Amino acid sequence: MIKRCPFEVKARDGAARTGAIATPRGVVRTPAFMPVGTGATVKAMFPEDVKATGADILLANTYHLMLRPGAERIARLGGLHHFMHWDGPILTDSGGYQVMSLAKLRRITEAGVTFQSHIDGATIELTSERAVEVQCLLGADIQMVLDECTPFPATHDEAKMSLELSLRWAERCKVAFASLGQEGQALFGIVQGGVYPDLREVSSRALIDIGFDGYAIGGLAVGEGQQAMLDMVEVTNVILPHDRPRYLMGVGTPEDMLAAIARGIDMFDCVMPTRSGRHCQAFTWGGRLNLRNARYADDPAPLDAESACPAARYERAYLHHLVKSGETLGAMLLSYANVQFYQELMARTREAIAQGRFAGFAEDVQRRYRASGDTDED
Amino acid sequence: MIKRCPFEVKARDGAARTGAIATPRGVVRTPAFMPVGTGATVKAMFPEDVKATGADILLANTYHLMLRPGAERIARLGGLHHFMHWDGPILTDSGGYQVMSLAKLRRITEAGVTFQSHIDGATIELTSERAVEVQCLLGADIQMVLDECTPFPATHDEAKMSLELSLRWAERCKVAFASLGQEGQALFGIVQGGVYPDLREVSSRALIDIGFDGYAIGGLAVGEGQQAMLDMVEVTNVILPHDRPRYLMGVGTPEDMLAAIARGIDMFDCVMPTRSGRHCQAFTWGGRLNLRNARYADDPAPLDAESACPAARYERAYLHHLVKSGETLGAMLLSYANVQFYQELMARTREAIAQGRFAGFAEDVQRRYRASGDTDED
Repeated sequence: MIKRCPFEVKARDGAARTGAIATPRGVVRTPAFMPVGTGATVKAMFPEDVKATGADILLANTYHLMLRPGAERIARLGGLHHFMHWDGPILTDSGGYQVMSLAKLRRITEAGVTFQSHIDGATIELTSERAVEVQCLLGADIQMVLDECTPFPATHDEAKMSLELSLRWAERCKVAFASLGQEGQALFGIVQGGVYPDLREVSSRALIDIGFDGYAIGGLAVGEGQQAMLDMVEVTNVILPHDRPRYLMGVGTPEDMLAAIARGIDMFDCVMPTRSGRHCQAFTWGGRLNLRNARYADDPAPLDAESACPAARYERAYLHHLVKSGETLGAMLLSYANVQFYQELMARTREAIAQGRFAGFAEDVQRRYRASGDTDED
Repeated sequence: MIKRCPFEVKARDGAARTGAIATPRGVVRTPAFMPVGTGATVKAMFPEDVKATGADILLANTYHLMLRPGAERIARLGGLHHFMHWDGPILTDSGGYQVMSLAKLRRITEAGVTFQSHIDGATIELTSERAVEVQCLLGADIQMVLDECTPFPATHDEAKMSLELSLRWAERCKVAFASLGQEGQALFGIVQGGVYPDLREVSSRALIDIGFDGYAIGGLAVGEGQQAMLDMVEVTNVILPHDRPRYLMGVGTPEDMLAAIARGIDMFDCVMPTRSGRHCQAFTWGGRLNLRNARYADDPAPLDAESACPAARYERAYLHHLVKSGETLGAMLLSYANVQFYQELMARTREAIAQGRFAGFAEDVQRRYRASGDTDED
């Protein structure tokens, strides 16, 4: 078997680790944050600016792209990388999570999930095989198995049935990927099990038995609270193989990412930096800012003097004016600055781990974030 | 008197002319198109990209900026150039046009106009003196007199009364500017008179008697039709001094600009490239495209192979996807490409005039634009 997604751990600091994942389209430095390019665009950002933030890899959403513009169309047009002007690695989710959160009239069967498109109401069947096929049509470098994101709250029985179905799908995805996947492309499994440590263990061990190029932890950050999330991360990471990347899906805040890195997570994705950017919220080295707040109307300070992002050089008074006026440039600048903050956070994290001072670094950032926290006083 | 706004005509081709206006912040090559930065931002564009399109000068709106964030605030923050990250020349209108089109409960007096803000309903008085004061607070390199933009249609009597009021305001603006204007800043008069040649002549001669650094033609492109507009441009340009810039306000389409240049106009401003960009419309060297049209869903061609704009390299299929999905990146790319098309149109126009082949060039562009014209078939 071709060695896919080779992962080299270069340094450890406690359970935290820094390393590099090799993909056909370049190296992903870990811990890595993947900006989310849902509909083949990281919202309100030029692709070259996404690259300039230091992002090594993007996430794109199978669910959105299969509905619009369609996976076969993207394949005809030369694949997702060409389509969205991003030549670095792309990870695609399997569509399962969005089916649960966005689609109407979902029906789960042994084969997969049938749903109505939230765009035009068309009935669509997403089987485990189709999930792999779509990701291969897109040309994703790292693909995810179809899973059912167990809702929160769920009883132990519900969570168990759900993870068992996800395991059967995972197996079928692996078979499909063996025939459809291109050289160098990788397939990750997804650990489920709700907030039940025993189920997380069952799920992890079963996925390891099937064998994947990397392992994601899914079904978290869905309302269970930070402590429950970190408990699940901890119990899972003890079991997951040390020589494979670990990816905590859909997380998160700077505080949550640092806490997860401390427990051995290597990869993250989240809409937070871009969504916050469109809602007047900035992540800076001084903490969170809400640019709508009247206190910034006359503030000549740059958004973030500590950031190297061109967008962070803009004055807070100007950004306040833009967001109060509903100007697109406000969303453009804040999205850019936020994604760059997330990348700088990962870069400093990697450096801190390599130098054996991760705990102090993480505490410093978390202290800054606790001390800030603009309210919506406007 | 300090020579303000020196204007050198470098070549003529019929009535068309190309030259350069010197301002304290750099040279404006003419014919010039000024992108509109209404609220201290050219909508959905980074300032450095506006610069990269080849724009020498921006227009900003006094009405919008005096309401939000306020002229005194912008002055405190270092002036409009600093505030909006644009170090080139800025021309500001006087606010008169927007008072007519946007404000509520307008009341025109001998001193100026009193109105209610469309943002918060505050009652505001914009006198001719205040119009100059606001523009000086903003730090505009080229300022405009307060005028009443005569509505269309207007009777001869109405148009006459309106232009006479505008002339009295113009005189008062000149007095105010003499005491408030900074060295090198310029003040332009605005010709009114509706669609009546005799009134356009009266207005032009009276403004020349007062004496301005440049002359704008206002009150056109408000519904009178292209032929009436060009007739007024023609009758006015015969009278306006040849050694001063002539600015046709609020125009326009590529076809209208070329026809006006053929009659001796040097400067334009219009929201069309940016507004169209936010509404799926592209200006290209092949003509107009409506990117919403289904015909582009599978079109791998770049937006405009003839343009040097980075945004014009994006495939039509991708742009179609973005605009159909309501993605901000669609507006960002089309605004950028459109503003660059307008600048390239001006650059090629200047070259054609310098080489004595303007008529053929203009006919070629107009033929391309007649042949195109996507409809909204979607």
